[in-house]
Amino acid sequence: MSFAASVLTLYPEMFPGALGLSLAGRALEAGTWSLDAIQIRDFATDRHRTVDDTPAGGGAGMVMRADVLAKAIDHASPPGDTRPRLLMSPRGRPLTQARVRELAAGPGAVILCGRFEGVDQRLIEARGLEEVSVGDFILSGGEPAALVLLDAVVRLLPGVMGNAVSGEEESFENGLLEHPHYTRPQEFEGRPIPEVLISGNHKKIAAWRRAESEALTKTRRPDLVQNGKTKG
Amino acid sequence: MSFAASVLTLYPEMFPGALGLSLAGRALEAGTWSLDAIQIRDFATDRHRTVDDTPAGGGAGMVMRADVLAKAIDHASPPGDTRPRLLMSPRGRPLTQARVRELAAGPGAVILCGRFEGVDQRLIEARGLEEVSVGDFILSGGEPAALVLLDAVVRLLPGVMGNAVSGEEESFENGLLEHPHYTRPQEFEGRPIPEVLISGNHKKIAAWRRAESEALTKTRRPDLVQNGKTKG
Repeated sequence: MSFAASVLTLYPEMFPGALGLSLAGRALEAGTWSLDAIQIRDFATDRHRTVDDTPAGGGAGMVMRADVLAKAIDHASPPGDTRPRLLMSPRGRPLTQARVRELAAGPGAVILCGRFEGVDQRLIEARGLEEVSVGDFILSGGEPAALVLLDAVVRLLPGVMGNAVSGEEESFENGLLEHPHYTRPQEFEGRPIPEVLISGNHKKIAAWRRAESEALTKTRRPDLVQNGKTKG
Repeated sequence: MSFAASVLTLYPEMFPGALGLSLAGRALEAGTWSLDAIQIRDFATDRHRTVDDTPAGGGAGMVMRADVLAKAIDHASPPGDTRPRLLMSPRGRPLTQARVRELAAGPGAVILCGRFEGVDQRLIEARGLEEVSVGDFILSGGEPAALVLLDAVVRLLPGVMGNAVSGEEESFENGLLEHPHYTRPQEFEGRPIPEVLISGNHKKIAAWRRAESEALTKTRRPDLVQNGKTKG
């Protein structure tokens, strides 16, 4: 059973985009996952194909209409569809690797890409949308965020990464940033690979990497340490 | 003077991708910014065009070589180039709207997209790379993260958003999540627009929106409140 992604967007031509290449692209061709990009504008009801209107109460920008979006969602995700419905939005809960893993273990996702000032709140409530944020910054729309979310999910689907166990992922999932990496050449612009890594002493290497991870996390992401996310 | 982005990647065909459409695409055509996607593999020195090797000290995956990447960076960003050099990496500091604004006010960015387990640490140090993360999750590579970063930056370039002041951005930059939005129709599936928003009382509307923002931020992002990021 493959992972089915339906993306609701005003720019369906942005998909699959980067997801049509590399690992994700090969998995798409192999049928490990599917991607259906749906034009929201096709569900507008007036001859101008309007999808937005001015905000109630005034203010800048435009708001996406609940009625038009409801039709698009009901088309993409009819009753009985068990896939979670996500709305990419800076108001959402920050995406985590744990949520990515849950999504990858499920049947797929219906992803609504917001544009303009946002989406009518009644639509979010009536269709039970889960608001998801990929970070504390503002994008031109939900589409780049959807590409990021799908990339993170697809690489975890069975067979996509091959047999390669990702040390990075395991490390990161401990709540620690990853230790530094080195590879050949032995010396680069006068900088040698740290001696411990070429010692052949696996216990020492593991201890060094752990200490480097902890030190980096403490310096760069004290929030991860403070929040008690560190498990390892 | 336009914003010049140089992206170093093993998948130059992923660019401009979504950035070739909509606001960012029109700005690219208009010359408000430029995008140069550079194939890292062109800087390999062996006939197999190798860019990676096994990690020193053992472990899963492959590490991108410092010598090959240094050549690619020195080509894209010769001495005198004042653009910041970014490495998209989950080990990086989380991208913020404040950093996005700084980047948008500058001459551009050189963006290295990591793949595999990561990049040789000596390259990061020798070329002064700023590691930037778009979230606590793992991507197949830095490319989707670079698309997100550039999207966030380009929309802030002069003329890209037109004269539209983004209320969303202002709100978000206060360290608060945005209040809910509503627009026509007046009633959607039995749900009316909140009465205050159609009262015409601008003071009451502003107070209601502020209270909604604060309540949502407290519930959904207590970290923003705890960290004292809230300014407004």
